[in-house]
Amino acid sequence: MIPAPFLLYLGHSDDEVGIKTSRGLAIFRPQDCVGEWRHDDSPLTLGLPRMNAAEARAAGAQTLVLGIANAGGRLGEALIEDALAAIATGMNVVSGLHQRLRDEPRLVRAAAEMGVALFDVRDPPAHLPVGTGKRRAGNRLLTVGTDCSVGKMYATLLLQQALRARGVNADFRATGQTGILIAGAGVPLDAVVADFISGAIETLSPARDDDGWDLIEGQGSLFHPSFAGVSTGLLHGAQPRALLLCHDPSRAHMRGLPHYQLPDLTTCLEENLRVARLTSPDVRAVGVALNTAKLDDAEARQLCAATADRLGLPCTDPYRFGADPIADWMLQCFEPSKPPMTVSR
Amino acid sequence: MIPAPFLLYLGHSDDEVGIKTSRGLAIFRPQDCVGEWRHDDSPLTLGLPRMNAAEARAAGAQTLVLGIANAGGRLGEALIEDALAAIATGMNVVSGLHQRLRDEPRLVRAAAEMGVALFDVRDPPAHLPVGTGKRRAGNRLLTVGTDCSVGKMYATLLLQQALRARGVNADFRATGQTGILIAGAGVPLDAVVADFISGAIETLSPARDDDGWDLIEGQGSLFHPSFAGVSTGLLHGAQPRALLLCHDPSRAHMRGLPHYQLPDLTTCLEENLRVARLTSPDVRAVGVALNTAKLDDAEARQLCAATADRLGLPCTDPYRFGADPIADWMLQCFEPSKPPMTVSR
Repeated sequence: MIPAPFLLYLGHSDDEVGIKTSRGLAIFRPQDCVGEWRHDDSPLTLGLPRMNAAEARAAGAQTLVLGIANAGGRLGEALIEDALAAIATGMNVVSGLHQRLRDEPRLVRAAAEMGVALFDVRDPPAHLPVGTGKRRAGNRLLTVGTDCSVGKMYATLLLQQALRARGVNADFRATGQTGILIAGAGVPLDAVVADFISGAIETLSPARDDDGWDLIEGQGSLFHPSFAGVSTGLLHGAQPRALLLCHDPSRAHMRGLPHYQLPDLTTCLEENLRVARLTSPDVRAVGVALNTAKLDDAEARQLCAATADRLGLPCTDPYRFGADPIADWMLQCFEPSKPPMTVSR
Repeated sequence: MIPAPFLLYLGHSDDEVGIKTSRGLAIFRPQDCVGEWRHDDSPLTLGLPRMNAAEARAAGAQTLVLGIANAGGRLGEALIEDALAAIATGMNVVSGLHQRLRDEPRLVRAAAEMGVALFDVRDPPAHLPVGTGKRRAGNRLLTVGTDCSVGKMYATLLLQQALRARGVNADFRATGQTGILIAGAGVPLDAVVADFISGAIETLSPARDDDGWDLIEGQGSLFHPSFAGVSTGLLHGAQPRALLLCHDPSRAHMRGLPHYQLPDLTTCLEENLRVARLTSPDVRAVGVALNTAKLDDAEARQLCAATADRLGLPCTDPYRFGADPIADWMLQCFEPSKPPMTVSR
């Protein structure tokens, strides 16, 4: 486990999307974040107290979170200098970048001298098994999307909150670097070797024999030509009883691919159900989560209502309006206390 | 490139399936194989002269091919001893096992001393790109299957022979270790990190501007819950104009998974076409290849004819009866000047 509390790094970043890991921690683990570390040239803020490494350490921070992404996922010189400064104060360092902290000798040496730890959350677990598709017990929901980065992690975490508020044992299962930092555990699916995608998810979300739910963070999209293989293996490994479809209505085309349009919601949902049925024949959709950040309140409510009507499923922006409609509907669909009806003859 | 000619290793193996890499080379590159090296406890043969390392070296062998698979893909002590003996005669060593030759210090040291090379064909190329799905020029065919190990590599290679016999520039593109050894190049798709599956295939089979064909070796099956993610990424990266469906009619259930039945051919083909259309909207099926090894001649011919009738596509066992019907039909379908007609048998 990565020791909290955290100092969240923004560095020199001027890209809102690039700081999504730091932002995710600020939103979903606010009690564990003592401050944000940004340099004068960064216009961004997470709304936390601004402090450098020494100030954060004095305020109790145990770990510097390098929660930023840059082109190529590399550790730049500025990043290394700041990580060294944090280590010098006695802080651990965690990174989700492609380039590993442990491959930078200066960091390894400094961490050893100070007796602190370096965490690379993009390292997949060793000895992952090949998936088997064997039916396993337990309630599992998977978030699926029309595209990458449409809010699957947010929807999954917010559904966890809504279910827990209803007394349900709901456990978020992380598959990406930000989710892993929030949950403290998980599998970085984009770094797993191809033959082990579904096996990794079977390991992440083993059989459970209570009435609770594993809520599995989705990745990519069946309609994204770069990553649909990952999404397919994730669907098969998850063996979901329930799918939650996530969508960003402001997206003009598939992320990074101007030559690909987004699928419509019905097509997307049908295709996800079709693929999921291979390992979970009775899978069903339980809702739609929209990311309405670019709409005003009235537009957002209207779009949710229209989408719910069209698909016959509860639809909400879970970040803006909460995940309650989906949580309620899902529990009603899978209510555990009622035995299946039998017909007497 | 891996220097030929080869000495094919069978070692102590008593498992026909386990020697499939050595067998593939014996069948598809017979002119490059000087002999087979098997110990007294192995009942298997490839029909080549039996010789040990020194005899093979004297006969001109340049490389020992460790073309066997064992549980876990590990280098056992016997394998290492024999590889050392081959190195001592001045031969290179190539392996497709999961455990790398370069991770065994005794082999590395001996190879350095003798000035020979160690080849690990399961190493994916460095710096693979993420797939883009951008339309690229050229004719590409992909073999797809109802299951793993149903003859996709054989069908692809035999189709290459049939097309070349017709004067077509046909190039086999290998995606597995045996295919890579046969072709001398390729991408070991099962070892590629999940995010790069489709990008690896875009790299393997770049745009071509002649009338020739890239024939891409398929992997896994959309209906195999362990590996469907790989098959999906392969379909998207290949951007195939044509699919060739491969099937083993003697298979009782999905390979390694008694709890999963094989899909029927029509369902399997439709699903492959559906997935392929994301990056190649006009993709079409051009034939069915059956592995009829367990049927007698009359049964095999009858099954091919019945399958052709049922699916409206040429059907053959390419290893037993040749790939001619598929090659002819495929060329007719994609002949630049003529629109395709209906299949004639």
